[in-house]
Amino acid sequence: MNDSQTSVAQLRAVVDEFVDERQWQKFHTPKNLSMSLAVEVAELMEHFQWRTPEESAAIAQDPQLRTEVAHEMADVACYLLALSSTLGIDLSAAIEQKMVLNRKKYPAEKCNGQWAPPES
Amino acid sequence: MNDSQTSVAQLRAVVDEFVDERQWQKFHTPKNLSMSLAVEVAELMEHFQWRTPEESAAIAQDPQLRTEVAHEMADVACYLLALSSTLGIDLSAAIEQKMVLNRKKYPAEKCNGQWAPPES
Amino acid sequence: MNDSQTSVAQLRAVVDEFVDERQWQKFHTPKNLSMSLAVEVAELMEHFQWRTPEESAAIAQDPQLRTEVAHEMADVACYLLALSSTLGIDLSAAIEQKMVLNRKKYPAEKCNGQWAPPES
Amino acid sequence: MNDSQTSVAQLRAVVDEFVDERQWQKFHTPKNLSMSLAVEVAELMEHFQWRTPEESAAIAQDPQLRTEVAHEMADVACYLLALSSTLGIDLSAAIEQKMVLNRKKYPAEKCNGQWAPPES
Repeated sequence: MNDSQTSVAQLRAVVDEFVDERQWQKFHTPKNLSMSLAVEVAELMEHFQWRTPEESAAIAQDPQLRTEVAHEMADVACYLLALSSTLGIDLSAAIEQKMVLNRKKYPAEKCNGQWAPPES
Repeated sequence: MNDSQTSVAQLRAVVDEFVDERQWQKFHTPKNLSMSLAVEVAELMEHFQWRTPEESAAIAQDPQLRTEVAHEMADVACYLLALSSTLGIDLSAAIEQKMVLNRKKYPAEKCNGQWAPPES
Repeated sequence: MNDSQTSVAQLRAVVDEFVDERQWQKFHTPKNLSMSLAVEVAELMEHFQWRTPEESAAIAQDPQLRTEVAHEMADVACYLLALSSTLGIDLSAAIEQKMVLNRKKYPAEKCNGQWAPPES
Repeated sequence: MNDSQTSVAQLRAVVDEFVDERQWQKFHTPKNLSMSLAVEVAELMEHFQWRTPEESAAIAQDPQLRTEVAHEMADVACYLLALSSTLGIDLSAAIEQKMVLNRKKYPAEKCNGQWAPPES
């Protein structure tokens, strides 16, 4: 599989099959899956917590670290796909809709290389 | 866009364009993006923290909540795509590789509707 | 040490000494420590992700799980104390201040056994 | 209240009273509270996600940001105290125990200003 030729639906089918084979659907409530997502994101973040931003970028050139990070990213993706499966949410459509809101909230001409602080 | 007809690469192109227009690439180190992923996952989790697992599943039938959750899921997906773009990691290939490891770690015949506790 | 006789400042001194002995102050920026907090909270959450709320409560009666959870809670506490040390923030004063705001935001007579959904 | 004169038990009593007044004990399962901890840590992290480590340290000199961060830290502390209350876990004793393990895992003479990567 590769990103150019693989649809989101095909990836979700891979995850669904894995879950079905293990009879794990009963554990896949949105509440549980949101926790799993957070757990996997934290395992990803663990690689970066003590590295500087520059060092974090350099891991792309370290084959072992790059693989470890890729696998954590795969875990995050799989739980997100599992959640979209549980809720019957089309991720591509959700991204398309959210991007409309993002473009309104962050107009390109205002951002211009700046980030906005969280609204307090 | 919909999941059946949209490739991962097409979704990533949508995110890349959004980031480029705002000149935000400089903020997109793996360290920063892993934090953003965690922030967005927490916003998703916020919808479920006080709901029971059953109530969390019922939000699929509530149009407003469903939309809110879909938008948080889109945010998670976008930061994951941004990270794969920054690191040059093919998500579909990473999922394929990780699934081989997952199948070894969790053989279907052993799982059989059980989950394994974290190794302490 | 026990909670009745131990001040927050005493706990922070324990953490500060540990950090100083290892010359880890240079890693203890607020950015890094906030990531470490998230990593440790996720390790705590990992114990509960597949358990029902009722099963999660029952771990108080399981000596081994209870100890594992207590140790994860200690890690969360230590990073929070390290962050308060780095920023020079008095946690007890912060809690006192925040509780004033919490009481305004969630008046007891309105809450009355109900939780409020996140403002969308 | 201030950290020098306030015991952990006194802080927990403040949290317990707040929870009792609102009849929120029923929501305070370990599972739910671990999610709330993650949500609050993410709100803390949100302040640092786009800042460099150096900029994150500089917020100690910005009165408004410092207050916002202090309040998020208070939220994290309150949920940790609520969890220790629910599980009947003494935080000070847990920290004392965990520190013994930490000293074995990270001997001062070996650390010496280095951090260890996560075991993969």
